[in-house]
Amino acid sequence: MEVRPGKTIVGFIGLGVMGKSMAGHILAAGYELHVYTRTKQSADTLIEKGAVWEETVAQLSKKCDVIITIVGFPADVEQIYLGDGGILNHAKAGCMAADMTTSHPDLAHKLYDTGAERGIRVLDAPVSGGDLGARNAALSIMVGGDKDAFDAVSPLFEIMGKNIVYQGKPGSGQHTKMANQIAVASGMIAVCEALAYAKKAGLDPETVLKSIEPGAAGSWSLSNLGPRMIKGDMEPGFFVKHFIKDMDIAARSSAELGLTTPGLDLTLSLYKKIEQMGLEDKGTQVLCRLFE
Amino acid sequence: MEVRPGKTIVGFIGLGVMGKSMAGHILAAGYELHVYTRTKQSADTLIEKGAVWEETVAQLSKKCDVIITIVGFPADVEQIYLGDGGILNHAKAGCMAADMTTSHPDLAHKLYDTGAERGIRVLDAPVSGGDLGARNAALSIMVGGDKDAFDAVSPLFEIMGKNIVYQGKPGSGQHTKMANQIAVASGMIAVCEALAYAKKAGLDPETVLKSIEPGAAGSWSLSNLGPRMIKGDMEPGFFVKHFIKDMDIAARSSAELGLTTPGLDLTLSLYKKIEQMGLEDKGTQVLCRLFE
Repeated sequence: MEVRPGKTIVGFIGLGVMGKSMAGHILAAGYELHVYTRTKQSADTLIEKGAVWEETVAQLSKKCDVIITIVGFPADVEQIYLGDGGILNHAKAGCMAADMTTSHPDLAHKLYDTGAERGIRVLDAPVSGGDLGARNAALSIMVGGDKDAFDAVSPLFEIMGKNIVYQGKPGSGQHTKMANQIAVASGMIAVCEALAYAKKAGLDPETVLKSIEPGAAGSWSLSNLGPRMIKGDMEPGFFVKHFIKDMDIAARSSAELGLTTPGLDLTLSLYKKIEQMGLEDKGTQVLCRLFE
Repeated sequence: MEVRPGKTIVGFIGLGVMGKSMAGHILAAGYELHVYTRTKQSADTLIEKGAVWEETVAQLSKKCDVIITIVGFPADVEQIYLGDGGILNHAKAGCMAADMTTSHPDLAHKLYDTGAERGIRVLDAPVSGGDLGARNAALSIMVGGDKDAFDAVSPLFEIMGKNIVYQGKPGSGQHTKMANQIAVASGMIAVCEALAYAKKAGLDPETVLKSIEPGAAGSWSLSNLGPRMIKGDMEPGFFVKHFIKDMDIAARSSAELGLTTPGLDLTLSLYKKIEQMGLEDKGTQVLCRLFE
């Protein structure tokens, strides 16, 4: 299937902060775009710009050639794909779908298998890069599934992201995202402890950053979240509640793979304390509060 | 005091892998350089190039205007500065010294105070950047002590490093280095767990790096040590035994400051397992062995 504007009808399900930007880029690229999301008013801006509103997932699924989904939790993914009114029960044979939600690798497998039985190609294609990456079409997209389906859907991925990598068989996109979140996890403790130490030792944390950022201690989190911690800016770039969801999946998946992850376990336990403190709607940098 | 070639006599104590390169840069810049190190043959190359060998720390101390030290452990620093034959008992009043060993902040304070009583200005100026940084004169140098002494010695720091930052009162250089090592510590677990997960999940770790390196999971360790872990290259860029020494100091210093550091504690406990496995002379990336 050749995917291009004027030919391909694209469906987009899930217009949260990320989804709204991503769908907007596809619309701006000239595609006929049909949208569905739980709260219709989230679609208002897109509809004004020409997107077609669909009342149900089933109705959207019947009309579209490629369906992109990015919703909240694995349970939502399951319902949208496998429920009675779900994509895999209503989409046309030959249709392709890409789930860009961060979800469980096993579920990705199940969607792939169920889709295959019905002639629907399903890719798992979670992203990293957050709101800003979505807004700037600079997401990293990590993709699992059939290589030819990946190639076919790539023109759409390239509209939404910058670093698009095919990772292999079904579930590989989700597994890659899990590896990503595992690396982010202990790295957050690293930054919090280092800055807390600097403060307690009577140093100026910004001057400390000048020394340690360019070297072996350097990380995306140190450079991007460190300054927010220092300023006390806890606005969400990435929500605590979403990070906990991802780490829960990663911990479960690690256990299933027989892998011990003491760093991930520690990080998850600390973020659950943050949640108990009622801070789940803050950005992940709020972890620094535990070290003050 | 104006520090310049042809005027200032520089003493250098400690010609290990790092010290040898650092002293070489000072000699190459045209300074009269007197050297002492535990094993004389480590000085051979420098002596061939014109450095003056001194039989004892005391003898070196009497002749030099600025003395730079980079040795193994805090106990070595203590002996070289405070022992009967030590710098602070033999250097001229008006002399300046910079200890570039990674050592305990309290010891840095003690050297500063004892030096001050005798008219000797002592700076704590630990480095990061490893062998390669020393060889390429690209070290990050984090300095504590009097600002005017820092300004005076800066011409020498600039010969050895690229990112030279004055961090404040005596001990601040060592405290900054501790913050650096604390950030490195949990970051190592992050990289090991992420790559171990990728392998267990049947992904190609190098392809995973392509997805996760440029984003929020990115770090110096992921980019520089990740590929060595994947290749099984355990050659030391930074020795396990030295990292354990630094983390021990950091843990002690954190406890003294009343700071809880669960990430550092976990990392240190894992590296002690690595040490028990007889791997203390490998590079820090050998931590990945625990996750295989």
